Amino acid sequence: MPDRRLPAPAGGSLPAVRRREQADPEALVTRARAGDPRALARLVSLVENASGELRQVMKVIAPLAGGARVIGLTGSPGVGKSTVTGALVRSYRAEGLRVGVLAVDPTSPFSGGALLGDRVRMQEHATDDGVFIRSMASRGHLGGLAWATPQALRVLDAAGFDVILIETVGVGQAEVQIAATADTTLVVAAPGMGDSVQAAKAGVLEIADIFVVNKSDRPGAQDAVRDLRTMLAMARYGPADWKPPIVSTVASAGDGIADLADAIGRHESWLAESGERDRRRRARAREEVSAIAVTQLRERLGGLPGGARLEELADRVAVGDIDPYSAADELIGG
Amino acid sequence: MPDRRLPAPAGGSLPAVRRREQADPEALVTRARAGDPRALARLVSLVENASGELRQVMKVIAPLAGGARVIGLTGSPGVGKSTVTGALVRSYRAEGLRVGVLAVDPTSPFSGGALLGDRVRMQEHATDDGVFIRSMASRGHLGGLAWATPQALRVLDAAGFDVILIETVGVGQAEVQIAATADTTLVVAAPGMGDSVQAAKAGVLEIADIFVVNKSDRPGAQDAVRDLRTMLAMARYGPADWKPPIVSTVASAGDGIADLADAIGRHESWLAESGERDRRRRARAREEVSAIAVTQLRERLGGLPGGARLEELADRVAVGDIDPYSAADELIGG
Repeated sequence: MPDRRLPAPAGGSLPAVRRREQADPEALVTRARAGDPRALARLVSLVENASGELRQVMKVIAPLAGGARVIGLTGSPGVGKSTVTGALVRSYRAEGLRVGVLAVDPTSPFSGGALLGDRVRMQEHATDDGVFIRSMASRGHLGGLAWATPQALRVLDAAGFDVILIETVGVGQAEVQIAATADTTLVVAAPGMGDSVQAAKAGVLEIADIFVVNKSDRPGAQDAVRDLRTMLAMARYGPADWKPPIVSTVASAGDGIADLADAIGRHESWLAESGERDRRRRARAREEVSAIAVTQLRERLGGLPGGARLEELADRVAVGDIDPYSAADELIGG
Repeated sequence: MPDRRLPAPAGGSLPAVRRREQADPEALVTRARAGDPRALARLVSLVENASGELRQVMKVIAPLAGGARVIGLTGSPGVGKSTVTGALVRSYRAEGLRVGVLAVDPTSPFSGGALLGDRVRMQEHATDDGVFIRSMASRGHLGGLAWATPQALRVLDAAGFDVILIETVGVGQAEVQIAATADTTLVVAAPGMGDSVQAAKAGVLEIADIFVVNKSDRPGAQDAVRDLRTMLAMARYGPADWKPPIVSTVASAGDGIADLADAIGRHESWLAESGERDRRRRARAREEVSAIAVTQLRERLGGLPGGARLEELADRVAVGDIDPYSAADELIGG
């Protein structure tokens, strides 16, 4: 999905600009760090498209990243994650912080434009140079969003954003993993439809640093808070552990957002004091390196979906001619 | 999660039985095909635990699979997928068909027992030998459910089940991929909370062979049907394409389930006539082989999360000492 803050450049200058940018990742990084939104958008596109220049870009920015606070938001569809994200953007902007938003659309191979409706709500920030909003699509790339998201995060981090919000749309395995690699993970729920129970079902409770009960002016909000409290009461925490607070919000009206920002701030202090921040960042780097390594291996061995050898072997598996393990052996030279 | 149809074997015979089973995958497969639920549960456990014997099991069953009709169910949490699944089980059982159910819990690394509540509804089938129900957990295995689900499906298929239902809990990238590899994919929605819009957001619409509007006795059901119709009207279908029907159900009361089974039957006929069935099965085999190959590569190269070399490289990436691509190169010998 294109970044809406960037109108298409006019006229015939685009190819020339593109060529220059492709030729010089360092210049692109310098421009992005100076606050040029076009350079930044171009860098994120390099990630999305798994461009060959990415390698050089990553070399350049390696020593520059690490300053941003990374906040993940997950939760069932319909609970208002985008509205909470928007309210947090406003809150951090009021403090004068530069804010980046990565909205992770898990199923974009099928539906590139699905997030458009949500992003429209962010249009109030469209002319604010201190905000960069991007819907991440995996563009059918092999490694998917587990591959792309940490790298896009790294780009925004190196570009000097103070806070980066990662909002996931779905609530499956990949999305929970992505949200969980943040410094602070918010699990957003809403009253009704047994959402807190549904969240438990989807396994997101265990990754929550902070629970947000959004739409808390609706019937059932107190029940949702009570359900979460009950669940938390059953968990065992050591004296030095972080105990996830529950924050009630009506994000559409801005209610409770100051409390939420406070809770995030307290968690950030705890992260720094406990050493957990470093642990999480190492875990994030591990996922990032691992995803790159596996993707490169798949490419190197021609084991790409769509690769002719794989097709041929899979066809034999489909008709029961050989088993999938023997096929895998033949593919990678077992 | 343990399979609830199988009480723990009494007394001291278990270790001896286990040893014998481990020693002879062929005997285990023979017993499973003869309808022994314990042998079947043991085979699925081999998949879940990524057991070393799996390779031999897969060799034995390679020519035996391919007879089952595979139906995937996906949709947002709370729409009643488990209830629809249960109603379909009842419907197929009434026809005398053997039915297997794989309930795919995307986030089980965090929460092994989360599905329990749903599975309780299935207890009516607990004493029915023609039904096998299993909640799949990835047990933190590297390849995750994308690795395990097709193999568990293959086991049930080879064991002679006529129909296999795959129900996903979450609605993220991995879950949509799993549901989409079925012969027939049902996308379940429910009135209220803008569920049809949420489904579109999560990108599940594009994979639907049949739309189910469940809880259709609730307010807003007609709106949900109309929204889906509008969306379908905007899609372009060729004359030979399958046009997804919309079926309204109240699965808890069994309403509309006969219509749903009819729609599934019509889709199955279309699959056979159009050649799409073979195409989907080849695609499923491709995913299966690909997932096995990548997992083996990761294991072979020690690039496992938790591997010492990866840890060391990731730590250097985390502090900006090297970039993730150079780390990946060092890991896999670029």
